[in-house]
Amino acid sequence: MRQYLLDSSFTGEQKKLVVTDKESQYLTKVLRLKVGERLLGRDRAGKSWLLELEQIGRNNCILSVSPLGEGKVDVATDSLPSYQGSYPRIFLYQCLCKGKKNETIVRQATEIGVEEITFVQSKFCVKDYSNKKNSTLGPQKERLEGQVKEAIQQSGSPIPTRLTNEILALSDIPRHWDNKGLFIFFHQSKRDEDQQTLPQLLATVDPDTPIAMLIGSEGGLSDDECAFLEDAGCKPVMLQGNILRAETAAIYALATIQVLLTET
Amino acid sequence: MRQYLLDSSFTGEQKKLVVTDKESQYLTKVLRLKVGERLLGRDRAGKSWLLELEQIGRNNCILSVSPLGEGKVDVATDSLPSYQGSYPRIFLYQCLCKGKKNETIVRQATEIGVEEITFVQSKFCVKDYSNKKNSTLGPQKERLEGQVKEAIQQSGSPIPTRLTNEILALSDIPRHWDNKGLFIFFHQSKRDEDQQTLPQLLATVDPDTPIAMLIGSEGGLSDDECAFLEDAGCKPVMLQGNILRAETAAIYALATIQVLLTET
Repeated sequence: MRQYLLDSSFTGEQKKLVVTDKESQYLTKVLRLKVGERLLGRDRAGKSWLLELEQIGRNNCILSVSPLGEGKVDVATDSLPSYQGSYPRIFLYQCLCKGKKNETIVRQATEIGVEEITFVQSKFCVKDYSNKKNSTLGPQKERLEGQVKEAIQQSGSPIPTRLTNEILALSDIPRHWDNKGLFIFFHQSKRDEDQQTLPQLLATVDPDTPIAMLIGSEGGLSDDECAFLEDAGCKPVMLQGNILRAETAAIYALATIQVLLTET
Repeated sequence: MRQYLLDSSFTGEQKKLVVTDKESQYLTKVLRLKVGERLLGRDRAGKSWLLELEQIGRNNCILSVSPLGEGKVDVATDSLPSYQGSYPRIFLYQCLCKGKKNETIVRQATEIGVEEITFVQSKFCVKDYSNKKNSTLGPQKERLEGQVKEAIQQSGSPIPTRLTNEILALSDIPRHWDNKGLFIFFHQSKRDEDQQTLPQLLATVDPDTPIAMLIGSEGGLSDDECAFLEDAGCKPVMLQGNILRAETAAIYALATIQVLLTET
């Protein structure tokens, strides 16, 4: 573990945190932290904190919390030297895939440092949530939240990735995104002979402005869906390579956006 | 399925192919091909062929093989419009990870269009093959070959990805690579303040020359291993982002190399 993700109830004002059950077991039995040992904490706003184990109880333990000072801190977490620069602000809109694939995508997108992940119901999704009264992730949500937490802790990501509770209809994307910045959707063929390439689109992006990307489900996006997105101002991108499975496509596309914005 | 991968025994001279057992079942029962229907074939050299189902037997079927003419061919495989340009020639050297992760990496690297995948034994690999008499992939090989085949058929990749049978000691990499071109290894921190960035390294690459990349196992590469690789002329690269799990790192790095070479 490279850092410990603090609960969303942490406001930054508490000086002590009581950790219970599984979480407490993890710290004291798996990581085998002793009283007095320190670890790196990260809150849901992305801020770092110094945590120190104060007391170990039967089913809980108490951590003291203090602001992380400058300079090297001797912490028990595996805080490897790593990249400390800025991250592009990427929002992933992902059409729902089959079961476990959604978890893989959430874990890998979190590792990479995506700011927000929103699942989308589209025409070719295998599962149809659109007729359900309440289009939320339901029981899957807890597993997906678990993947986010584990990925943040393991990767040491400074980005506290959020998971949108609601499953969005594709037609609701423009309202949800609300023109925050460039919106890209990936498609396996060109929509228009003159369409811009990914580097051309990204060259227009201000580094502080968020970027959204949409990845289709296993069946891709329909022609109508592509036309609807274009009418809403979203930009189609075709990458020069093979047609990838949905879960590979998500990570591939995220990598390409991040690397083009940070390395070129 | 976007194409059918021909067996390595196919030389290009046979006019008929007898397909047996599982493969025959797949074509006739899963894809439900009828006599006279056609599909797209790809041989192990990457060449496309037109296949036509001639006869269905009890446990086998016969395909006729002919060279693929120009223009649109009516085939039963899901041959979506896709990228027809050239591919960077990427050779992946991957330190052995735990069980299933190797399969995921092989599948995704094949989808992306890697030319060759070679597994490497390094210091921090969880499993140690170095003391085995015969350092080959052994029984795992068949499962990994299965992943390659499935990925080529599903992605329609024109690159007939090869899997090296031998597990290489890290110290054997220079002999195996034999200076075919640029060799990059990914590391979570800078080896040298002045080291080149990935775009700088790739800017020197001739498009027809192969590129090799090495990805560590779950534990990364040791300092000694990095120093050894540098002495052998391999170039360290640190990407500006989070420390990724081994299987995410492999796909992330492949995507970045491919996109920088094809899109910029």
